Amino acid sequence: MTPQRMAILAYLDGNRTHPSAADVHKAVSDKFPTMSLATVYNTMETLKTKGAVIELAIDPGKKRFDPNPGPHHHLICVHCKEIVDVHGNFSLNLSEKERCGFDITGNHVDFYGICPKCKKKGRHNPHIIIPNCIQK
Amino acid sequence: MTPQRMAILAYLDGNRTHPSAADVHKAVSDKFPTMSLATVYNTMETLKTKGAVIELAIDPGKKRFDPNPGPHHHLICVHCKEIVDVHGNFSLNLSEKERCGFDITGNHVDFYGICPKCKKKGRHNPHIIIPNCIQK
Repeated sequence: MTPQRMAILAYLDGNRTHPSAADVHKAVSDKFPTMSLATVYNTMETLKTKGAVIELAIDPGKKRFDPNPGPHHHLICVHCKEIVDVHGNFSLNLSEKERCGFDITGNHVDFYGICPKCKKKGRHNPHIIIPNCIQK
Repeated sequence: MTPQRMAILAYLDGNRTHPSAADVHKAVSDKFPTMSLATVYNTMETLKTKGAVIELAIDPGKKRFDPNPGPHHHLICVHCKEIVDVHGNFSLNLSEKERCGFDITGNHVDFYGICPKCKKKGRHNPHIIIPNCIQK
């Protein structure tokens, strides 16, 4: 394994910020100034194929990655798209009609909201349209 | 607007199958045999930019699209990746600790399960690892 790839893996290990490839590049380019964004992209795609990271479709036009494929939910800021892990088991029961004949095996919840930083900046609009989101 | 693009829009209108670009291509190429998959891809990307369809990250390696950006949840087969819309408002409360200072504005739930067709085919494995999914 190249030192560059090791630096990327070290950055991702235990990382809970759900970084984009650009975020990863920014973090590791201090140590490896010649590392290109393309190298980071390719490494993230390889890690995705291996199941080491998950690609999240939370931030349109910007691929975000979750280095923790384990079971958890997400809490997402509708303004800055900060993503926080939520651990917990919610009792979510579907009626027979809603189940459409499926045997239910699990769930994942994306919670949406406004993060403390955005609230401080005066970003309070709770009516931002998030696709497929059911407003509270 | 080209007749090809109109055919794609007509196929997507009211469509609840969450098709991939290949599915769209298959459906419209009967009428337009010379339409390339690249044209369909480009059209789906344009529609995504306009907010007319949502890209779903449910089926790794295969972009799926939801022509209905409106509020609803999803029920996904862990085997064949069939996606069914679920309408309903679930009472999902986060504790103060879990909220991390966010003001919660909404949620979207991905339910996972085994669809009736896969059950009929003997696909009963409920232990398939789905990233970020909390097993029931």
